[in-house]
Amino acid sequence: MLPIAMSDIHVHLEARHVEALFGRGHALSKWRDLTIPGQFACHETVEVVGPAGSIAGAVVVGPPRGQTQVEVSLGNAAVLGIQPPLRESGRLEGTPGATLVGTAGRVELGSGVIAAARHIHMHLRDARDFGVVDGQRVRVRVPGERGLVFEQVVVRVSEEYALEMHVDMEEGRAAAVTDFQLVELLR
Amino acid sequence: MLPIAMSDIHVHLEARHVEALFGRGHALSKWRDLTIPGQFACHETVEVVGPAGSIAGAVVVGPPRGQTQVEVSLGNAAVLGIQPPLRESGRLEGTPGATLVGTAGRVELGSGVIAAARHIHMHLRDARDFGVVDGQRVRVRVPGERGLVFEQVVVRVSEEYALEMHVDMEEGRAAAVTDFQLVELLR
Repeated sequence: MLPIAMSDIHVHLEARHVEALFGRGHALSKWRDLTIPGQFACHETVEVVGPAGSIAGAVVVGPPRGQTQVEVSLGNAAVLGIQPPLRESGRLEGTPGATLVGTAGRVELGSGVIAAARHIHMHLRDARDFGVVDGQRVRVRVPGERGLVFEQVVVRVSEEYALEMHVDMEEGRAAAVTDFQLVELLR
Repeated sequence: MLPIAMSDIHVHLEARHVEALFGRGHALSKWRDLTIPGQFACHETVEVVGPAGSIAGAVVVGPPRGQTQVEVSLGNAAVLGIQPPLRESGRLEGTPGATLVGTAGRVELGSGVIAAARHIHMHLRDARDFGVVDGQRVRVRVPGERGLVFEQVVVRVSEEYALEMHVDMEEGRAAAVTDFQLVELLR
């Protein structure tokens, strides 16, 4: 068994985009640590703007990354009028863009919007215990009155990861997930 | 195999609530037939108001019913600030209420808000072909890059039903469903 958590719309920012959105020399302000070691939700939020509409309050996740990435649900995508592909984090080739609006400016992204592929973060020890390897796709069962079995769940193994499955809000609600409830990796 | 379709937030109205919301003597205006025989989406929409927020544009589904019922997703419920139970259509005992606002007035519901349990409508012939009975719970597999297996799918059998599975928008997006794609009832 392993814990599951839901991710709402959020953005990872390149350092130059932090400055463009929040001002020269601005440093991200930690709101709370995430369960992904070293990652934190920030007080800063952005408005994500697409051709059909916009969504305010998208949390910035720090620290800054090499490439700005916007993670949306398919419902968010419908509001924005964007068709993002289902991708693993960091795989941004050929993805659509959007406009980000912060307190000090805006950034026009040529690419970077994805619907995150559901995945499990695992430490090397966890991967050994479950008998799986990095990049493998597995099935995960969520029990309960809205129980279901997620297929196509990507295993991501790193010595920096703590054991946790991540789904978006729609995936979580489809299974009536409660954050940090336990789910079952099926062999 | 059977087709699947997604339902967005919508309301079924008692005749007296049609008048309260849209005016004395008002008759619902058909926008388009649904795939459920005899049921139709109306041009009329209502705003659904809860303690935390409101959602405009909820489509009225006709014809009028004996009891007003509001079907929301768990995401809708979070916006409204309501905790609806997971229920089959028509089972409204002990459900929370909401306020409906129409063009001519408003209705304060003491109950009637549900998150619809995912279900399959089947004609008697289909039930015989699949070897299932009314009220049975089955599993249904949605194929694809976001494939999953829905458990706890309620079978509803009637000679008035055409074969179709119904899920809410979040369930559909969690599986990247396209309306009317084919899914597999698992034995």
